[in-house]
Amino acid sequence: MSTGTDQDFNASSPLSSLSWGGDHLLMLDQRLLPEEIVFLKLYTAEEVWEGIHSMKVRGAPAIGIAAAYGVVLAARAYPGALPVEWLEVTRKACAYLATSRPTAVNLFWALDRMKEKAGQLANTASSIAALNEQLLAEADAIRAEDEEVCRRIGEHALPLIQDGMGILTHCNAGGLATAKYGTALAPMYLAHENGISFKVFADETRPVLQGARLTAFELQQAGIDVTLLADNMAAMVMSKGWVQAVIVGTDRIAANGDVANKIGTYGVAVLAKAHGIPFYVASPLSTIDLSTPTGQDIPIEERAAEEITEGFGKRTAPQGVKVFNPAFDVTPNEYVTAIITEKGIVQAPYDESLKDLFADND
Amino acid sequence: MSTGTDQDFNASSPLSSLSWGGDHLLMLDQRLLPEEIVFLKLYTAEEVWEGIHSMKVRGAPAIGIAAAYGVVLAARAYPGALPVEWLEVTRKACAYLATSRPTAVNLFWALDRMKEKAGQLANTASSIAALNEQLLAEADAIRAEDEEVCRRIGEHALPLIQDGMGILTHCNAGGLATAKYGTALAPMYLAHENGISFKVFADETRPVLQGARLTAFELQQAGIDVTLLADNMAAMVMSKGWVQAVIVGTDRIAANGDVANKIGTYGVAVLAKAHGIPFYVASPLSTIDLSTPTGQDIPIEERAAEEITEGFGKRTAPQGVKVFNPAFDVTPNEYVTAIITEKGIVQAPYDESLKDLFADND
Repeated sequence: MSTGTDQDFNASSPLSSLSWGGDHLLMLDQRLLPEEIVFLKLYTAEEVWEGIHSMKVRGAPAIGIAAAYGVVLAARAYPGALPVEWLEVTRKACAYLATSRPTAVNLFWALDRMKEKAGQLANTASSIAALNEQLLAEADAIRAEDEEVCRRIGEHALPLIQDGMGILTHCNAGGLATAKYGTALAPMYLAHENGISFKVFADETRPVLQGARLTAFELQQAGIDVTLLADNMAAMVMSKGWVQAVIVGTDRIAANGDVANKIGTYGVAVLAKAHGIPFYVASPLSTIDLSTPTGQDIPIEERAAEEITEGFGKRTAPQGVKVFNPAFDVTPNEYVTAIITEKGIVQAPYDESLKDLFADND
Repeated sequence: MSTGTDQDFNASSPLSSLSWGGDHLLMLDQRLLPEEIVFLKLYTAEEVWEGIHSMKVRGAPAIGIAAAYGVVLAARAYPGALPVEWLEVTRKACAYLATSRPTAVNLFWALDRMKEKAGQLANTASSIAALNEQLLAEADAIRAEDEEVCRRIGEHALPLIQDGMGILTHCNAGGLATAKYGTALAPMYLAHENGISFKVFADETRPVLQGARLTAFELQQAGIDVTLLADNMAAMVMSKGWVQAVIVGTDRIAANGDVANKIGTYGVAVLAKAHGIPFYVASPLSTIDLSTPTGQDIPIEERAAEEITEGFGKRTAPQGVKVFNPAFDVTPNEYVTAIITEKGIVQAPYDESLKDLFADND
């Protein structure tokens, strides 16, 4: 399926989550949105690691982009290095940055790409300054390609959005999670520009509230009709017949089509199925990991209890209470109506259709 | 089904949500738990109305008890009234207090009982002081009977809890929601005293976080193994096989067995069914409303957007965003494995089994 249009989006998040500042990475601190808009200047790989780990930047594609610039910053710290030392520094930076978060595969995908590029560059006998320029160009390319990929995802998914529809989304897979446009939100931006009238229901997405703080904010800024819900209200909204499609992003899709995404996504998928609502996952190819056989093989990050017990400036649970705080869950492939990629929309059986996407690529 | 035991619970919430202070109602401000333990002295029906409306007291049985004492306070404000005036004051107080919240039927049940009692008393030609004493006795009786009803619910439900089980609950249907013991939590307190080893998973229950602030607190105080979850984690916990039963309370059960309870309960019920987990509702007879034919006929309270947008002490959503904030949802009867009452456990078809409960009563 393809819309084949060349339309450009004018609306998406007005804020760029990541940009290169000449000698630093400019990172929007998404933890502070929407009340405070603070851009951080990061000069070291360690600062980028911390920015990813603490979720100042989040969203699978954005994490990959940030990590790529982290490698650039690591390499630039040694302007007097020999090429072999330069290569060693970039490799260590890649290994180090890969430890910042475990679930989103874009992180590893981007770092593998940077490592491979560094290996190629180190053989060219260029100056360190030239090597750093070209390493920066690779990070810039990852960023630019992500923007283009998201644009195409939006175009492919556009026919799914019709006048009068209600769409439910979970977490934030918008412009803030990517270079621009987003994955799950890309078709919404495009449909809005095309004058299609629809409503979005945004789960607030505990514990970090990406839906309340980021998705509601992005869509509101773009003039899209968005209603914020607590996560546990999605079932009622579906039962009222207000939702005709669920569209979410993803942090990793396994070879069999199992989808890891922000905690709560699996529950939304079960509810969608129970209400006969299609459940779509918007995903760049860089988020599909054919080397992970099934969702059971995706490592699921568990985060600190404090995100639940004192997440927003005051304690809301008893001291010492046990907490379970997984950052992601896995939606089995049987709940996934279709996966929307930059190369089109694929459906089950995913072990075949996902492989075909990459076969076409070669 | 009946356990027929005469066991007494020693453990339940160490805090009494409501008690009579001689000339005032002592109300635990549940909004401030668990960090602050503040008891409010309420001297007027207006203060009780506000306490119910603002959810300083919550939980269907507790709301009914609070309202009953509110009528007592209204009547005591006119010590020099004639009996006919006294009756008028109590009737007006009943009508007024009934407007504090719309969904929980115990509120109307308790006020109807107070109104009927006042009508009987007014015909006895007693002094106003004597009338007030007897009106207070009726409120005390409602409170004492609730404690006894919860104890019996716990006994009837005890066989449902076995060694090694995981039990998920939503919101707070514990000692704080009732006079003592709770409804959904009553069997847990009893099982714990009987040395049964089980785990409880408590949904935090956005937006007001009764699960985090109250259920986790109560169970932790009682030494019961409790793990706190964000609401959207319940599906993952179920998929891991950690939950063998869901037990929740209710604010109103319709004649056909549809269950109104805290928002999010319906989603939990759908998830339980999808995972083959029984879904139990613990309910006093006073929460079953045979005059409400189905869940569609239960008025669902919508509350202020700020509970979602700035509930944690700081704003967590963009200014001016649209919000949907229903306080309750309705779980259709087909999701309800059984309803546990003080008279035993009943199952579908509920239009018959619920009617039979009341027929036995007569």
